[in-house]
Amino acid sequence: MSATGDPQQADDLLERTRAFIRDTVIPAEPAPGTTLDAQELERLRELARAAGVYAPHLPVEYGGIGLPITAWSPIFQAAGYSPIGPSVLGCMAPDEGNAHLLEKIGTPGQKHDYLGPLARGEVRSAFAMTEPHPGAGSDPEALRTTAVEVDGGWRIDGEKRYISGAEGAGFFIVMARTEHGATMFLVDAGTPGLRVGRDIRTTEHAIAGGHSHVHFDDCRVGADAVLGEPHEGFRYAQVRLGPARLTHCMRWLGLARRSLDIALDRAESRELFGSRLRDLGLAQALIADSVIDIEASDALIASCATALATDPREGARLSSIAKVFCSEAIVRVVDRAIQLCGGDGVSDDLPLASYWGEVRPFRIYDGANETHRWAIARRASSARRRAMAADADAAAAGGAA
Amino acid sequence: MSATGDPQQADDLLERTRAFIRDTVIPAEPAPGTTLDAQELERLRELARAAGVYAPHLPVEYGGIGLPITAWSPIFQAAGYSPIGPSVLGCMAPDEGNAHLLEKIGTPGQKHDYLGPLARGEVRSAFAMTEPHPGAGSDPEALRTTAVEVDGGWRIDGEKRYISGAEGAGFFIVMARTEHGATMFLVDAGTPGLRVGRDIRTTEHAIAGGHSHVHFDDCRVGADAVLGEPHEGFRYAQVRLGPARLTHCMRWLGLARRSLDIALDRAESRELFGSRLRDLGLAQALIADSVIDIEASDALIASCATALATDPREGARLSSIAKVFCSEAIVRVVDRAIQLCGGDGVSDDLPLASYWGEVRPFRIYDGANETHRWAIARRASSARRRAMAADADAAAAGGAA
Amino acid sequence: MSATGDPQQADDLLERTRAFIRDTVIPAEPAPGTTLDAQELERLRELARAAGVYAPHLPVEYGGIGLPITAWSPIFQAAGYSPIGPSVLGCMAPDEGNAHLLEKIGTPGQKHDYLGPLARGEVRSAFAMTEPHPGAGSDPEALRTTAVEVDGGWRIDGEKRYISGAEGAGFFIVMARTEHGATMFLVDAGTPGLRVGRDIRTTEHAIAGGHSHVHFDDCRVGADAVLGEPHEGFRYAQVRLGPARLTHCMRWLGLARRSLDIALDRAESRELFGSRLRDLGLAQALIADSVIDIEASDALIASCATALATDPREGARLSSIAKVFCSEAIVRVVDRAIQLCGGDGVSDDLPLASYWGEVRPFRIYDGANETHRWAIARRASSARRRAMAADADAAAAGGAA
Amino acid sequence: MSATGDPQQADDLLERTRAFIRDTVIPAEPAPGTTLDAQELERLRELARAAGVYAPHLPVEYGGIGLPITAWSPIFQAAGYSPIGPSVLGCMAPDEGNAHLLEKIGTPGQKHDYLGPLARGEVRSAFAMTEPHPGAGSDPEALRTTAVEVDGGWRIDGEKRYISGAEGAGFFIVMARTEHGATMFLVDAGTPGLRVGRDIRTTEHAIAGGHSHVHFDDCRVGADAVLGEPHEGFRYAQVRLGPARLTHCMRWLGLARRSLDIALDRAESRELFGSRLRDLGLAQALIADSVIDIEASDALIASCATALATDPREGARLSSIAKVFCSEAIVRVVDRAIQLCGGDGVSDDLPLASYWGEVRPFRIYDGANETHRWAIARRASSARRRAMAADADAAAAGGAA
Repeated sequence: MSATGDPQQADDLLERTRAFIRDTVIPAEPAPGTTLDAQELERLRELARAAGVYAPHLPVEYGGIGLPITAWSPIFQAAGYSPIGPSVLGCMAPDEGNAHLLEKIGTPGQKHDYLGPLARGEVRSAFAMTEPHPGAGSDPEALRTTAVEVDGGWRIDGEKRYISGAEGAGFFIVMARTEHGATMFLVDAGTPGLRVGRDIRTTEHAIAGGHSHVHFDDCRVGADAVLGEPHEGFRYAQVRLGPARLTHCMRWLGLARRSLDIALDRAESRELFGSRLRDLGLAQALIADSVIDIEASDALIASCATALATDPREGARLSSIAKVFCSEAIVRVVDRAIQLCGGDGVSDDLPLASYWGEVRPFRIYDGANETHRWAIARRASSARRRAMAADADAAAAGGAA
Repeated sequence: MSATGDPQQADDLLERTRAFIRDTVIPAEPAPGTTLDAQELERLRELARAAGVYAPHLPVEYGGIGLPITAWSPIFQAAGYSPIGPSVLGCMAPDEGNAHLLEKIGTPGQKHDYLGPLARGEVRSAFAMTEPHPGAGSDPEALRTTAVEVDGGWRIDGEKRYISGAEGAGFFIVMARTEHGATMFLVDAGTPGLRVGRDIRTTEHAIAGGHSHVHFDDCRVGADAVLGEPHEGFRYAQVRLGPARLTHCMRWLGLARRSLDIALDRAESRELFGSRLRDLGLAQALIADSVIDIEASDALIASCATALATDPREGARLSSIAKVFCSEAIVRVVDRAIQLCGGDGVSDDLPLASYWGEVRPFRIYDGANETHRWAIARRASSARRRAMAADADAAAAGGAA
Repeated sequence: MSATGDPQQADDLLERTRAFIRDTVIPAEPAPGTTLDAQELERLRELARAAGVYAPHLPVEYGGIGLPITAWSPIFQAAGYSPIGPSVLGCMAPDEGNAHLLEKIGTPGQKHDYLGPLARGEVRSAFAMTEPHPGAGSDPEALRTTAVEVDGGWRIDGEKRYISGAEGAGFFIVMARTEHGATMFLVDAGTPGLRVGRDIRTTEHAIAGGHSHVHFDDCRVGADAVLGEPHEGFRYAQVRLGPARLTHCMRWLGLARRSLDIALDRAESRELFGSRLRDLGLAQALIADSVIDIEASDALIASCATALATDPREGARLSSIAKVFCSEAIVRVVDRAIQLCGGDGVSDDLPLASYWGEVRPFRIYDGANETHRWAIARRASSARRRAMAADADAAAAGGAA
Repeated sequence: MSATGDPQQADDLLERTRAFIRDTVIPAEPAPGTTLDAQELERLRELARAAGVYAPHLPVEYGGIGLPITAWSPIFQAAGYSPIGPSVLGCMAPDEGNAHLLEKIGTPGQKHDYLGPLARGEVRSAFAMTEPHPGAGSDPEALRTTAVEVDGGWRIDGEKRYISGAEGAGFFIVMARTEHGATMFLVDAGTPGLRVGRDIRTTEHAIAGGHSHVHFDDCRVGADAVLGEPHEGFRYAQVRLGPARLTHCMRWLGLARRSLDIALDRAESRELFGSRLRDLGLAQALIADSVIDIEASDALIASCATALATDPREGARLSSIAKVFCSEAIVRVVDRAIQLCGGDGVSDDLPLASYWGEVRPFRIYDGANETHRWAIARRASSARRRAMAADADAAAAGGAA
């Protein structure tokens, strides 16, 4: 079978994943605005493993189900239907993207030492790239954390910020400026000179781990801590970012579907001016626009996943476009669901306001949408310029045009 | 002087209000997502009275400054620049609207007993109209709470919900169905049969009081508890709602201005891709759109306030339009400010996400915007129909057209 | 090979189609706002046949290239890159949809007599469904044209309106109410009782044929004029409409791409405030939003085409969603291109304003977008209701949920 | 009486203007997409003068009605309710703005020679500022046409473009670069060296005069041709542009009202799915959004007119904001009217598509909206910077903050 695997098996897995989320995960969700307990998470993960729905994206040899990226979207959406679903199923950021990166560029030893435990859910990980202003953020080239070669190893100095999941992570993938560009390092928690600092509290609450400052002060690591090859950090970052952006789209699209379902249930049960809410045109306009946003997001994700599997450059271009569209569409869908639910929509009686808190940051994370728009426009201008030049060349050569 | 009072005095008051908010109120704001302490509120109110900026909208005889409605907007915006400002200045909902209603339709005795203490900040009040589904909500005609005449007084039965400020209120203005329509009652806290129930927690946190269920079970009040005249409740509701909607617009527009200022400060200090954020076109687009939203809101409010002062019917029409436009514009401005501030925008390091929580409900409160749109469209259709009929009549009469 | 045919052949065809449009069709385009001459159209079609790019969607046995629907989109977009392209390549509405319908439900004789000449470009055709108010329009069930059985044939009476391509059509597919629903008829031009009336001039000008009134007065046709089976008209209309909506999306998305390219060329050559237009953030925002609109449209079309090929019910649902999204996205892209080109954008020096005239009607044709939104919302509500009922049944049966 | 004149007289004038437009102008409108005949225009102007509704904005001494700018909006909107109304009433661009400029900065002799005939409708005029790329356009500082002092007069050389009303104008106000900035000149049609070239056809058709290229080749004018003072051209341009932008808003807002009325009439008469169109929620959403757009535009215009009358700097700021908001709102209103009218909306049976052609250029004319957004954002940033500096100074001085 080709890239999407056996369709029958994929359908079965999707059905089982949906049932697991519906019957096991949703009943275990924490109250809106509160955080899932770590022990409870572990209990749910055991159930997920038993149900055969854990780690759909990881290689079979590392305990996963081995789906290719083109088959992830429906499964990740099913997981994301609960804000704690991706974490329970072991496909939450940043672990999911880190595992992907380790699989793509890690040495066999690194895969054994880091990907294995990560895949089995024995440790959590963090990806330490973003820095306090004026360091790396929407502009990765502004990287200021440095690593210099010393004594057959490396010394890392600098400060990272907004590092999701840092608190409690077993290891960090650290991006640092090196002599010829940037290099990624695998740094174990507890390494002297590595310190997890102040946690930045955001609008997200469903999953523990926070977004912390991480400090590197004369932090020494061995030569084997280099992930893949030295000085390839900026390239590797793109390897990670394309798929990572897209899996964010998938997971949060699941939460958008949940929001719409909550609103549809309300529109079914509520009466106003003598009609059911679902039969009032102004409510139908909100519902229809959310369906359209969801389907367009779904289609863009599918199109981008296919590209990522076959043409990385086109995949990167589309992942940028999908990120912008999906992140904005998802926030709109949650916002419309709030509106459809009236006063309950902004109350703790429904989880919708807390869902807003979960999804709103995505318009900023992974590169602010404005930065992506800038890149999208530049790529479009360059592509057009190249096409015009090629036409001109063809015309000059053959006089055809 | 005419309706707007002495311009010089108005400018002075505005300047003093701004200074008071900047120098006294903002430094006392609670942390984002937390609530102002009651004692601290009282301390700040004392300072506001001392500074001569308390109760700008109330009649002088009740301790206020006596501004006409056409002069409220800049002052209320200055107050709303802090989420606790309107409460400190005694011009917060629901007290502000209740005071306005008492002034317009209360008997002298009711003004003495209720408006006086309210104006002096000795008690808080609540407005009990909204009911659990399928009662009064976006459709006030669905009112189910009843009042029947008994023993020279009235017996009230029913359930209210989402009653802002109910917890701790000294009295309630209660809307109940009576034989010939609806009637408003003044019911003191502590009246047997009146019980404040479960508090609904929402995305708003700055000001205490919550949004509670209020139960009326065989609640007996005297004949003098009728506010104004019996059976005039639906009409009185409109007297209250037009200005109340508009003062919401004013206050929250102040918070939108605060949000834009926070974003402008960030755009000034932050560098990206070698430029200040404020010089990047994609940031400028966000800033300009927020300026436009703010100015259009400001102009609509001014236009509506003038109408409310001179032509109540046109005032009601415009207050509906202003409510929809401003509530959506304000949420957009806060959302863009979050976006301009990047990761900090969704963190507790800045108050912007909590501002979103303060302003988002306004698209739902005071009649969901969809309900207003429905009413706006119906009014437009009727007005056009009448105009065409008048033209036809004129033509039939004179043959002119 | 599966449904998409040989990818290499498909790529070749796409490349040849693009080259033909660029080198042959675009240089022959009429001036903005004017109409392609009929003789010139025939000349261009001859060239298209010679270049092997004519009728990509029609069966090989009828002289086409035989692409399956899942492979149409890039080709139709390439054709639509010129407003006259689809007509030159023989894949313009309404002929394209009529050919599709004949292929699906025509008898062998009907295919020979009607599909053959149509495929060879010897005749044009029209689809006569829409009626003057209060007949069939956005609501097809309001159909008022009737057909009754007489003398072994049928008598058709009624009035159609907005019938694209009626002027000069060789035959009409006519929808009429019959005893048990609706029936489609093949009616030759020139049949007594059929009269093409007043042409409705619209904002479209590129292609001749207009949108005419068509009158049926005691119009007699034989029993063999029934297309497919009698009384299946409403079902057949859906067979035609799903793909027809989607091919509209494809063709006009091509024109959106053309508009963006025109704007990109301008942004490349124009300087403002010391920068190239393409480097100004506010222009980049317009460009990026258009790229996103185009890619989301492209992805939705691909997703819908796959569904139409495998699951007609899901295909119909998605074609409605794609129609709404694409028609609005395409108008936005043309509008932004106008804006990027400044004063030239609204002048005849550029074709953009005339492109607006070509694409704007699509938000109305094939069912106004508001009607589709209404249907989309209703389908979403029903689907959710069914899902909840199924869950409840499962829970009742097994106690699992 | 103060700035707005006698309210009763203003109401009378408004009523008379509306009646004149309804009873005299609308019946004389040319067919959609065609242009009003010059003789017919003159006939209508005579009637306007007779009805006492001609030139509401011009000083009484020049034959106008003498309304202050704060009273123009309702009258100009009433005029703009017909696309030919402003021209009939003598308050169309560019004459209206040119008259305003002559009144503000012309010498007595210039007023006599140019403002008089212009006010009496004896001549038309043009304003020659915009140039072919890379000259003055959205960036006026890029001005390339030059004027040098020669023989006690001036020699003008350069090329203008997109000069509205140039064909047939009696005189031109020409902006040229001079030694110390820019200077405005009054140049009579027929002056040797002045040539009106190619007309640029745009989407506007209602009024004759076109948008032409104008060439100056060794064009000699006397010293008295300098409008106002030499080298003040850039400042004068702002004097003209603020009000000129705002009167555009007024006039086209009138056409937006007309569009909505056409749509309301349709929504009244049309039935769909068993309801009147006006009672369907999805139509009501379109209607309500248009009412909101119209009222917000109206309020912004009023607010800006007040500022222009009292605080030119604030007036300029608000005119930029009003221009962006109103031009986009007006296009939206026309677009929604098209949508509400279905197939008729894009046909010549209704004038709506031609109205789109009249209003769409306004998002580009008078500075593209993107240029205004850039300026609006910059002003907001500077204002905030100044405010923060003032606060800091105050704090440093008194320690108060």
